[in-house]
Amino acid sequence: MTASQKIWTAGLVIIGDEILSGRTQDKNIAQVASWLQVQGIRLAEVRVVPDVQDKIVEAVNTLRAENDYLFTTGGIGPTHDDITVDAVAEALGVEVVIHPTARAILEKYYADKGGITEGRLRMARVPEGAELIPNRMSGAPGIRRGNVILMAGVPHITAGMLDALTGELEGGAPLVSETVGCWVAESEVADLLREVEAAHEACQIGSYPFFRDGTVGANFVIRSTDKDALQSCMHTLCEGLGEKGYDFTPGGI
Amino acid sequence: MTASQKIWTAGLVIIGDEILSGRTQDKNIAQVASWLQVQGIRLAEVRVVPDVQDKIVEAVNTLRAENDYLFTTGGIGPTHDDITVDAVAEALGVEVVIHPTARAILEKYYADKGGITEGRLRMARVPEGAELIPNRMSGAPGIRRGNVILMAGVPHITAGMLDALTGELEGGAPLVSETVGCWVAESEVADLLREVEAAHEACQIGSYPFFRDGTVGANFVIRSTDKDALQSCMHTLCEGLGEKGYDFTPGGI
Repeated sequence: MTASQKIWTAGLVIIGDEILSGRTQDKNIAQVASWLQVQGIRLAEVRVVPDVQDKIVEAVNTLRAENDYLFTTGGIGPTHDDITVDAVAEALGVEVVIHPTARAILEKYYADKGGITEGRLRMARVPEGAELIPNRMSGAPGIRRGNVILMAGVPHITAGMLDALTGELEGGAPLVSETVGCWVAESEVADLLREVEAAHEACQIGSYPFFRDGTVGANFVIRSTDKDALQSCMHTLCEGLGEKGYDFTPGGI
Repeated sequence: MTASQKIWTAGLVIIGDEILSGRTQDKNIAQVASWLQVQGIRLAEVRVVPDVQDKIVEAVNTLRAENDYLFTTGGIGPTHDDITVDAVAEALGVEVVIHPTARAILEKYYADKGGITEGRLRMARVPEGAELIPNRMSGAPGIRRGNVILMAGVPHITAGMLDALTGELEGGAPLVSETVGCWVAESEVADLLREVEAAHEACQIGSYPFFRDGTVGANFVIRSTDKDALQSCMHTLCEGLGEKGYDFTPGGI
Protein backbone atom coordinates (compact mmCIF):
# COMPACT_ATOMS: atom_id res chain seq x y z
CA MET A 1 0.00 0.00 0.00
CA THR A 2 1.50 3.36 -1.02
CA ALA A 3 1.10 6.53 1.00
CA SER A 4 -1.56 7.77 -1.39
CA GLN A 5 -3.67 4.72 -0.58
CA LYS A 6 -3.79 5.37 3.14
CA ILE A 7 -7.39 5.62 4.27
CA TRP A 8 -7.81 8.65 6.50
CA THR A 9 -10.52 8.37 9.12
CA ALA A 10 -12.30 10.58 11.62
CA GLY A 11 -14.43 10.01 14.71
CA LEU A 12 -17.24 12.36 15.73
CA VAL A 13 -18.48 12.95 19.28
CA ILE A 14 -21.82 14.75 19.50
CA ILE A 15 -22.32 16.34 22.88
CA GLY A 16 -25.83 17.18 23.84
CA ASP A 17 -28.64 16.10 26.11
CA GLU A 18 -30.99 17.71 23.60
CA ILE A 19 -30.20 14.99 21.04
CA LEU A 20 -30.48 12.15 23.56
CA SER A 21 -33.82 13.46 24.84
CA GLY A 22 -35.23 13.49 21.32
CA ARG A 23 -35.97 17.20 21.58
CA THR A 24 -33.61 18.10 18.74
CA GLN A 25 -33.23 16.14 15.51
CA ASP A 26 -29.50 15.81 14.82
CA LYS A 27 -28.33 17.37 11.57
CA ASN A 28 -24.59 17.39 12.21
CA ILE A 29 -23.83 13.72 11.49
CA ALA A 30 -24.93 14.06 7.87
CA GLN A 31 -23.25 17.40 7.24
CA VAL A 32 -19.95 16.45 8.89
CA ALA A 33 -19.97 13.09 7.06
CA SER A 34 -20.62 14.67 3.66
CA TRP A 35 -17.96 17.33 4.21
CA LEU A 36 -15.40 14.71 5.29
CA GLN A 37 -16.04 12.67 2.12
CA VAL A 38 -14.94 15.63 0.03
CA GLN A 39 -11.79 16.05 2.14
CA GLY A 40 -10.87 12.39 1.48
CA ILE A 41 -11.56 11.44 5.09
CA ARG A 42 -13.94 8.70 6.09
CA LEU A 43 -16.26 9.07 9.09
CA ALA A 44 -15.57 5.83 10.97
CA GLU A 45 -17.76 6.17 14.06
CA VAL A 46 -20.09 8.61 15.80
CA ARG A 47 -20.92 8.69 19.49
CA VAL A 48 -23.68 10.80 20.96
CA VAL A 49 -22.98 11.37 24.66
CA PRO A 50 -24.70 13.43 27.37
CA ASP A 51 -23.38 16.65 28.92
CA VAL A 52 -21.36 14.61 31.44
CA GLN A 53 -17.63 15.24 31.58
CA ASP A 54 -16.49 11.62 32.16
CA LYS A 55 -18.57 10.40 29.22
CA ILE A 56 -17.12 13.04 26.89
CA VAL A 57 -13.55 12.32 28.01
CA GLU A 58 -13.95 8.61 27.40
CA ALA A 59 -15.52 9.01 23.95
CA VAL A 60 -12.91 11.59 22.87
CA ASN A 61 -9.98 9.47 23.98
CA THR A 62 -11.28 6.25 22.44
CA LEU A 63 -12.13 7.75 19.06
CA ARG A 64 -8.99 9.90 18.75
CA ALA A 65 -6.82 6.83 19.43
CA GLU A 66 -8.58 4.94 16.63
CA ASN A 67 -8.74 7.69 14.00
CA ASP A 68 -6.64 10.36 12.29
CA TYR A 69 -9.03 13.13 13.36
CA LEU A 70 -11.51 13.65 16.14
CA PHE A 71 -14.37 16.13 15.79
CA THR A 72 -16.83 17.24 18.42
CA THR A 73 -20.02 19.26 18.03
CA GLY A 74 -21.85 21.03 20.83
CA GLY A 75 -21.13 22.29 24.30
CA ILE A 76 -18.85 25.24 23.49
CA GLY A 77 -21.32 28.01 24.34
CA PRO A 78 -21.51 30.33 27.36
CA THR A 79 -23.79 28.39 29.72
CA HIS A 80 -23.16 26.03 32.63
CA ASP A 81 -23.97 22.95 30.53
CA ASP A 82 -21.21 23.82 28.02
CA ILE A 83 -18.35 21.64 29.27
CA THR A 84 -16.74 20.39 26.07
CA VAL A 85 -13.56 22.48 26.46
CA ASP A 86 -13.01 21.21 30.01
CA ALA A 87 -13.63 17.60 28.95
CA VAL A 88 -11.33 17.77 25.92
CA ALA A 89 -8.56 19.46 27.95
CA GLU A 90 -8.85 16.63 30.47
CA ALA A 91 -8.75 14.05 27.67
CA LEU A 92 -5.61 15.67 26.21
CA GLY A 93 -4.01 16.14 29.64
CA VAL A 94 -3.60 19.92 29.26
CA GLU A 95 -4.87 22.99 31.11
CA VAL A 96 -7.77 25.20 30.12
CA VAL A 97 -6.56 28.71 29.27
CA ILE A 98 -8.12 31.92 27.94
CA HIS A 99 -7.07 32.35 24.29
CA PRO A 100 -6.15 36.06 23.88
CA THR A 101 -7.39 36.26 20.28
CA ALA A 102 -10.68 34.62 21.20
CA ARG A 103 -11.07 37.09 24.04
CA ALA A 104 -10.41 40.01 21.67
CA ILE A 105 -12.96 38.61 19.16
CA LEU A 106 -15.61 38.30 21.87
CA GLU A 107 -14.90 41.77 23.31
CA LYS A 108 -15.37 43.27 19.87
CA TYR A 109 -18.45 41.17 19.08
CA TYR A 110 -20.17 42.09 22.36
CA ALA A 111 -18.97 45.73 22.46
CA ASP A 112 -22.42 47.06 21.49
CA LYS A 113 -24.30 44.13 23.07
CA GLY A 114 -23.66 44.88 26.74
CA GLY A 115 -19.95 44.00 26.81
CA ILE A 116 -18.11 40.93 28.00
CA THR A 117 -19.49 38.96 30.98
CA GLU A 118 -18.25 35.95 32.90
CA GLY A 119 -20.51 33.70 30.84
CA ARG A 120 -19.37 35.18 27.54
CA LEU A 121 -15.73 34.93 28.54
CA ARG A 122 -16.24 31.16 28.89
CA MET A 123 -16.29 31.06 25.09
CA ALA A 124 -12.64 32.25 24.99
CA ARG A 125 -11.53 29.20 26.99
CA VAL A 126 -9.52 26.59 25.03
CA PRO A 127 -7.31 23.58 25.81
CA GLU A 128 -3.76 24.95 26.11
CA GLY A 129 -1.95 25.01 22.76
CA ALA A 130 -5.10 25.31 20.64
CA GLU A 131 -5.73 27.46 17.55
CA LEU A 132 -9.06 29.06 16.65
CA ILE A 133 -11.45 28.21 13.83
CA PRO A 134 -13.17 31.31 12.45
CA ASN A 135 -16.90 31.69 13.08
CA ARG A 136 -18.51 34.17 10.69
CA MET A 137 -22.02 33.55 12.03
CA SER A 138 -21.67 34.48 15.69
CA GLY A 139 -18.83 35.63 17.89
CA ALA A 140 -17.45 32.49 19.49
CA PRO A 141 -14.80 30.67 17.42
CA GLY A 142 -14.30 26.93 17.03
CA ILE A 143 -11.18 25.33 18.40
CA ARG A 144 -8.50 23.12 16.89
CA ARG A 145 -5.69 21.45 18.77
CA GLY A 146 -3.73 19.21 16.42
CA ASN A 147 -6.08 16.52 15.14
CA VAL A 148 -8.84 17.39 17.62
CA ILE A 149 -11.46 19.83 16.35
CA LEU A 150 -14.21 21.37 18.48
CA MET A 151 -17.19 22.88 16.68
CA ALA A 152 -20.50 24.46 17.61
CA GLY A 153 -23.66 22.36 17.91
CA VAL A 154 -26.04 24.72 16.08
CA PRO A 155 -25.96 23.28 12.54
CA HIS A 156 -25.56 26.49 10.53
CA ILE A 157 -22.68 27.60 12.78
CA THR A 158 -21.10 24.15 12.45
CA ALA A 159 -21.42 24.54 8.68
CA GLY A 160 -19.51 27.83 8.76
CA MET A 161 -16.70 26.23 10.77
CA LEU A 162 -16.48 23.30 8.35
CA ASP A 163 -16.26 25.81 5.54
CA ALA A 164 -13.35 27.54 7.29
CA LEU A 165 -11.58 24.16 7.61
CA THR A 166 -12.04 23.18 3.96
CA GLY A 167 -8.72 22.20 2.42
CA GLU A 168 -6.91 22.55 5.78
CA LEU A 169 -6.84 18.85 6.71
CA GLU A 170 -4.69 16.22 5.05
CA GLY A 171 -6.80 13.43 3.55
CA GLY A 172 -6.58 10.63 1.03
CA ALA A 173 -8.29 9.82 -2.22
CA PRO A 174 -11.93 10.75 -1.75
CA LEU A 175 -14.38 7.91 -1.61
CA VAL A 176 -16.43 8.09 -4.79
CA SER A 177 -19.77 6.44 -5.36
CA GLU A 178 -22.22 5.44 -8.05
CA THR A 179 -25.88 4.76 -7.43
CA VAL A 180 -28.35 2.69 -9.39
CA GLY A 181 -32.02 2.53 -8.45
CA CYS A 182 -34.48 -0.24 -9.24
CA TRP A 183 -38.17 -0.86 -8.52
CA VAL A 184 -37.43 -4.22 -6.97
CA ALA A 185 -37.60 -5.75 -3.51
CA GLU A 186 -33.97 -5.89 -2.43
CA SER A 187 -34.52 -9.49 -1.35
CA GLU A 188 -34.96 -10.47 -5.03
CA VAL A 189 -31.46 -9.30 -5.94
CA ALA A 190 -29.61 -10.12 -2.71
CA ASP A 191 -27.63 -12.92 -4.37
CA LEU A 192 -26.68 -10.72 -7.33
CA LEU A 193 -25.43 -7.94 -5.03
CA ARG A 194 -23.31 -10.37 -3.04
CA GLU A 195 -21.78 -11.88 -6.19
CA VAL A 196 -21.00 -8.52 -7.80
CA GLU A 197 -19.39 -7.20 -4.62
CA ALA A 198 -17.30 -10.36 -4.23
CA ALA A 199 -16.04 -9.92 -7.82
CA HIS A 200 -14.93 -6.31 -7.18
CA GLU A 201 -12.63 -6.28 -4.19
CA ALA A 202 -12.05 -2.52 -4.15
CA CYS A 203 -15.79 -1.78 -3.95
CA GLN A 204 -18.53 -1.98 -1.35
CA ILE A 205 -22.18 -2.16 -2.31
CA GLY A 206 -24.85 -0.86 0.03
CA SER A 207 -28.53 -1.62 -0.51
CA TYR A 208 -31.07 1.00 0.60
CA PRO A 209 -34.67 -0.14 0.29
CA PHE A 210 -37.64 2.22 0.26
CA PHE A 211 -41.41 2.24 -0.07
CA ARG A 212 -42.93 4.89 -2.33
CA ASP A 213 -46.43 5.23 -3.75
CA GLY A 214 -47.23 1.74 -2.47
CA THR A 215 -44.34 0.09 -4.32
CA VAL A 216 -41.03 -1.24 -3.02
CA GLY A 217 -37.72 -0.29 -4.55
CA ALA A 218 -34.10 0.06 -3.61
CA ASN A 219 -31.07 2.15 -4.41
CA PHE A 220 -27.78 0.32 -4.66
CA VAL A 221 -24.77 2.46 -3.82
CA ILE A 222 -21.29 1.33 -4.86
CA ARG A 223 -18.40 3.03 -3.03
CA SER A 224 -14.69 2.90 -3.74
CA THR A 225 -11.56 5.06 -3.68
CA ASP A 226 -10.68 3.53 -7.08
CA LYS A 227 -12.63 5.19 -9.92
CA ASP A 228 -11.90 2.46 -12.47
CA ALA A 229 -12.97 -0.29 -10.12
CA LEU A 230 -16.11 1.71 -9.37
CA GLN A 231 -17.05 2.00 -13.05
CA SER A 232 -16.38 -1.67 -13.66
CA CYS A 233 -18.50 -2.69 -10.67
CA MET A 234 -21.33 -0.36 -11.73
CA HIS A 235 -21.24 -1.84 -15.23
CA THR A 236 -21.40 -5.43 -13.91
CA LEU A 237 -24.25 -4.62 -11.53
CA CYS A 238 -26.35 -2.87 -14.20
CA GLU A 239 -25.72 -5.75 -16.59
CA GLY A 240 -26.84 -8.21 -13.91
CA LEU A 241 -30.03 -6.25 -13.20
CA GLY A 242 -30.77 -6.10 -16.93
CA GLU A 243 -30.22 -9.85 -17.38
CA LYS A 244 -32.75 -10.51 -14.63
CA GLY A 245 -35.24 -8.36 -16.51
CA TYR A 246 -35.35 -5.35 -14.18
CA ASP A 247 -35.49 -1.76 -15.34
CA PHE A 248 -32.84 0.25 -13.54
CA THR A 249 -32.07 3.95 -13.21
CA PRO A 250 -28.43 4.98 -13.06
CA GLY A 251 -28.10 7.82 -10.56
CA GLY A 252 -30.77 6.33 -8.35
CA ILE A 253 -34.50 6.72 -7.91
CA MET B 1 -33.35 5.37 46.74
CA THR B 2 -36.57 3.36 46.36
CA ALA B 3 -37.25 1.04 43.46
CA SER B 4 -39.51 3.64 41.87
CA GLN B 5 -36.60 6.09 41.74
CA LYS B 6 -34.32 3.81 39.76
CA ILE B 7 -33.32 5.52 36.53
CA TRP B 8 -33.71 3.10 33.63
CA THR B 9 -31.36 3.66 30.73
CA ALA B 10 -30.86 2.41 27.18
CA GLY B 11 -28.05 2.46 24.67
CA LEU B 12 -28.65 2.65 20.91
CA VAL B 13 -26.35 1.27 18.22
CA ILE B 14 -27.11 2.53 14.71
CA ILE B 15 -25.68 0.25 12.08
CA GLY B 16 -25.24 1.69 8.66
CA ASP B 17 -22.60 2.89 6.26
CA GLU B 18 -25.30 5.10 4.72
CA ILE B 19 -25.39 7.27 7.85
CA LEU B 20 -21.59 7.49 8.14
CA SER B 21 -21.25 8.41 4.45
CA GLY B 22 -23.70 11.29 4.86
CA ARG B 23 -25.96 9.80 2.22
CA THR B 24 -28.87 9.31 4.62
CA GLN B 25 -29.92 11.77 7.31
CA ASP B 26 -30.54 9.78 10.49
CA LYS B 27 -34.06 9.98 11.85
CA ASN B 28 -33.96 7.08 14.29
CA ILE B 29 -32.07 8.76 17.15
CA ALA B 30 -34.82 11.32 17.66
CA GLN B 31 -37.71 8.87 17.33
CA VAL B 32 -36.16 6.21 19.57
CA ALA B 33 -35.21 8.88 22.14
CA SER B 34 -38.70 10.38 22.22
CA TRP B 35 -40.34 6.97 22.48
CA LEU B 36 -38.01 5.93 25.32
CA GLN B 37 -38.89 9.08 27.29
CA VAL B 38 -42.53 8.02 27.34
CA GLN B 39 -41.56 4.53 28.55
CA GLY B 40 -39.63 6.07 31.48
CA ILE B 41 -36.30 5.03 29.98
CA ARG B 42 -33.48 7.47 29.32
CA LEU B 43 -31.33 7.23 26.19
CA ALA B 44 -27.83 7.33 27.68
CA GLU B 45 -25.62 6.98 24.60
CA VAL B 46 -25.79 6.40 20.85
CA ARG B 47 -23.08 4.91 18.68
CA VAL B 48 -23.19 4.94 14.89
CA VAL B 49 -20.95 2.18 13.56
CA PRO B 50 -20.21 0.87 10.05
CA ASP B 51 -21.39 -2.46 8.62
CA VAL B 52 -18.36 -4.20 10.15
CA GLN B 53 -19.02 -7.12 12.47
CA ASP B 54 -16.25 -6.42 15.02
CA LYS B 55 -17.37 -2.81 15.41
CA ILE B 56 -20.99 -3.83 15.98
CA VAL B 57 -20.02 -6.53 18.51
CA GLU B 58 -17.90 -4.09 20.50
CA ALA B 59 -20.55 -1.34 20.56
CA VAL B 60 -23.31 -3.79 21.50
CA ASN B 61 -21.33 -5.34 24.34
CA THR B 62 -20.15 -2.03 25.78
CA LEU B 63 -23.56 -0.37 25.75
CA ARG B 64 -25.52 -3.38 27.00
CA ALA B 65 -23.15 -3.72 29.96
CA GLU B 66 -23.74 -0.06 30.89
CA ASN B 67 -27.50 0.12 30.37
CA ASP B 68 -30.76 -1.69 31.15
CA TYR B 69 -31.64 -2.01 27.47
CA LEU B 70 -29.74 -2.11 24.21
CA PHE B 71 -31.41 -1.20 20.93
CA THR B 72 -30.04 -1.50 17.43
CA THR B 73 -31.40 -0.12 14.18
CA GLY B 74 -30.39 -1.24 10.72
CA GLY B 75 -28.79 -4.26 9.12
CA ILE B 76 -31.60 -6.82 9.51
CA GLY B 77 -32.62 -6.96 5.85
CA PRO B 78 -31.99 -9.62 3.20
CA THR B 79 -28.75 -8.41 1.62
CA HIS B 80 -25.08 -9.26 2.15
CA ASP B 81 -24.45 -6.04 4.11
CA ASP B 82 -27.11 -6.99 6.69
CA ILE B 83 -24.98 -8.54 9.42
CA THR B 84 -26.60 -7.27 12.60
CA VAL B 85 -28.03 -10.66 13.61
CA ASP B 86 -24.64 -12.34 13.23
CA ALA B 87 -22.91 -9.58 15.19
CA VAL B 88 -25.44 -9.57 18.03
CA ALA B 89 -25.34 -13.38 18.28
CA GLU B 90 -21.55 -13.18 18.56
CA ALA B 91 -21.87 -10.43 21.20
CA LEU B 92 -24.30 -12.58 23.21
CA GLY B 93 -22.29 -15.76 22.70
CA VAL B 94 -25.15 -17.69 21.09
CA GLU B 95 -25.78 -19.36 17.73
CA VAL B 96 -27.75 -17.93 14.83
CA VAL B 97 -30.86 -20.01 14.15
CA ILE B 98 -33.87 -19.81 11.84
CA HIS B 99 -36.91 -18.76 13.86
CA PRO B 100 -39.81 -20.99 12.70
CA THR B 101 -42.46 -18.28 13.19
CA ALA B 102 -40.37 -15.73 11.30
CA ARG B 103 -39.97 -18.23 8.49
CA ALA B 104 -43.72 -18.81 8.37
CA ILE B 105 -44.38 -15.04 8.33
CA LEU B 106 -41.94 -14.57 5.45
CA GLU B 107 -43.31 -17.53 3.48
CA LYS B 108 -46.81 -16.07 3.77
CA TYR B 109 -45.66 -12.51 2.98
CA TYR B 110 -43.75 -13.57 -0.14
CA ALA B 111 -46.26 -16.24 -1.29
CA ASP B 112 -47.55 -14.02 -4.10
CA LYS B 113 -44.23 -12.17 -4.54
CA GLY B 114 -42.11 -14.96 -6.00
CA GLY B 115 -41.82 -17.09 -2.88
CA ILE B 116 -39.03 -17.49 -0.37
CA THR B 117 -35.41 -17.21 -1.53
CA GLU B 118 -32.07 -17.61 0.21
CA GLY B 119 -31.83 -13.84 0.66
CA ARG B 120 -35.36 -13.56 2.05
CA LEU B 121 -34.77 -16.47 4.41
CA ARG B 122 -31.92 -14.44 5.94
CA MET B 123 -34.61 -12.28 7.54
CA ALA B 124 -35.82 -15.30 9.58
CA ARG B 125 -32.39 -15.64 11.23
CA VAL B 126 -32.25 -14.66 14.92
CA PRO B 127 -29.83 -15.08 17.82
CA GLU B 128 -30.86 -18.34 19.56
CA GLY B 129 -33.49 -17.78 22.24
CA ALA B 130 -34.96 -14.64 20.65
CA GLU B 131 -38.61 -13.59 20.32
CA LEU B 132 -40.07 -11.65 17.41
CA ILE B 133 -41.32 -8.06 17.29
CA PRO B 134 -44.29 -7.66 14.94
CA ASN B 135 -43.75 -5.66 11.76
CA ARG B 136 -47.01 -4.47 10.24
CA MET B 137 -45.30 -2.52 7.46
CA SER B 138 -43.29 -5.19 5.67
CA GLY B 139 -42.72 -8.90 6.19
CA ALA B 140 -39.57 -9.16 8.26
CA PRO B 141 -40.06 -8.94 12.03
CA GLY B 142 -37.86 -7.22 14.58
CA ILE B 143 -36.05 -9.31 17.16
CA ARG B 144 -35.91 -9.21 20.94
CA ARG B 145 -33.66 -11.31 23.12
CA GLY B 146 -34.00 -10.27 26.74
CA ASN B 147 -32.90 -6.66 27.02
CA VAL B 148 -31.44 -6.57 23.50
CA ILE B 149 -33.79 -5.30 20.81
CA LEU B 150 -33.03 -5.34 17.07
CA MET B 151 -35.10 -3.08 14.84
CA ALA B 152 -35.20 -2.12 11.18
CA GLY B 153 -33.27 0.89 9.91
CA VAL B 154 -35.98 2.35 7.65
CA PRO B 155 -37.59 4.93 9.97
CA HIS B 156 -41.26 4.18 9.34
CA ILE B 157 -40.65 0.45 9.90
CA THR B 158 -38.69 1.25 13.07
CA ALA B 159 -41.68 3.33 14.19
CA GLY B 160 -44.03 0.35 13.75
CA MET B 161 -41.73 -1.85 15.83
CA LEU B 162 -41.51 0.76 18.60
CA ASP B 163 -45.28 0.91 18.55
CA ALA B 164 -45.45 -2.87 19.00
CA LEU B 165 -43.08 -2.58 22.00
CA THR B 166 -45.04 0.20 23.71
CA GLY B 167 -45.80 -0.74 27.30
CA GLU B 168 -43.77 -3.96 27.03
CA LEU B 169 -40.57 -2.71 28.71
CA GLU B 170 -40.18 -1.96 32.40
CA GLY B 171 -39.20 1.65 33.02
CA GLY B 172 -39.17 4.27 35.75
CA ALA B 173 -40.83 7.59 36.29
CA PRO B 174 -40.79 9.35 32.95
CA LEU B 175 -38.54 12.35 32.64
CA VAL B 176 -40.81 15.38 32.37
CA SER B 177 -39.81 18.78 31.08
CA GLU B 178 -40.86 22.41 30.97
CA THR B 179 -39.61 24.89 28.41
CA VAL B 180 -39.42 28.65 28.57
CA GLY B 181 -38.27 30.70 25.59
CA CYS B 182 -36.74 34.16 25.66
CA TRP B 183 -35.45 36.60 23.01
CA VAL B 184 -32.11 36.91 24.75
CA ALA B 185 -28.53 35.91 24.00
CA GLU B 186 -27.99 32.90 26.26
CA SER B 187 -24.71 34.47 27.37
CA GLU B 188 -26.68 37.24 29.13
CA VAL B 189 -28.46 34.77 31.41
CA ALA B 190 -25.71 32.16 31.84
CA ASP B 191 -25.20 33.10 35.51
CA LEU B 192 -28.94 32.99 36.23
CA LEU B 193 -29.27 29.52 34.66
CA ARG B 194 -26.37 28.20 36.70
CA GLU B 195 -27.78 29.60 39.95
CA VAL B 196 -31.30 28.30 39.35
CA GLU B 197 -30.02 24.82 38.47
CA ALA B 198 -27.79 24.75 41.56
CA ALA B 199 -30.82 25.63 43.73
CA HIS B 200 -32.92 22.75 42.31
CA GLU B 201 -30.97 19.54 42.73
CA ALA B 202 -33.53 17.27 41.07
CA CYS B 203 -33.56 19.34 37.86
CA GLN B 204 -31.28 19.88 34.90
CA ILE B 205 -31.52 22.97 32.74
CA GLY B 206 -30.45 22.89 29.11
CA SER B 207 -29.99 26.06 27.07
CA TYR B 208 -30.73 25.89 23.34
CA PRO B 209 -29.87 29.07 21.48
CA PHE B 210 -31.21 29.94 18.04
CA PHE B 211 -31.13 32.71 15.44
CA ARG B 212 -34.42 33.68 13.84
CA ASP B 213 -35.37 36.67 11.72
CA GLY B 214 -31.98 38.22 12.48
CA THR B 215 -32.47 38.06 16.26
CA VAL B 216 -30.92 35.75 18.84
CA GLY B 217 -32.98 33.85 21.37
CA ALA B 218 -32.88 30.71 23.42
CA ASN B 219 -35.17 28.06 24.80
CA PHE B 220 -34.39 26.85 28.30
CA VAL B 221 -35.52 23.29 28.97
CA ILE B 222 -35.82 22.04 32.55
CA ARG B 223 -35.90 18.25 32.96
CA SER B 224 -36.67 16.17 36.03
CA THR B 225 -38.37 12.97 37.12
CA ASP B 226 -39.91 14.97 40.00
CA LYS B 227 -42.92 17.01 38.86
CA ASP B 228 -43.01 19.25 41.93
CA ALA B 229 -39.31 20.06 41.68
CA LEU B 230 -39.85 20.79 37.99
CA GLN B 231 -42.66 23.29 38.69
CA SER B 232 -40.66 24.98 41.42
CA CYS B 233 -37.58 25.28 39.19
CA MET B 234 -39.68 26.64 36.31
CA HIS B 235 -41.23 29.22 38.65
CA THR B 236 -37.83 30.37 39.93
CA LEU B 237 -36.38 30.62 36.42
CA CYS B 238 -39.32 32.64 35.05
CA GLU B 239 -39.16 34.92 38.09
CA GLY B 240 -35.43 35.43 37.50
CA LEU B 241 -35.95 36.26 33.82
CA GLY B 242 -38.69 38.72 34.75
CA GLU B 243 -36.52 40.42 37.39
CA LYS B 244 -33.84 40.96 34.76
CA GLY B 245 -36.45 42.65 32.56
CA TYR B 246 -36.79 39.96 29.87
CA ASP B 247 -40.07 38.92 28.30
CA PHE B 248 -40.37 35.18 28.37
CA THR B 249 -42.69 32.66 26.77
CA PRO B 250 -43.64 29.57 28.80
CA GLY B 251 -43.77 26.59 26.44
CA GLY B 252 -40.91 27.96 24.39
CA ILE B 253 -40.51 30.05 21.27
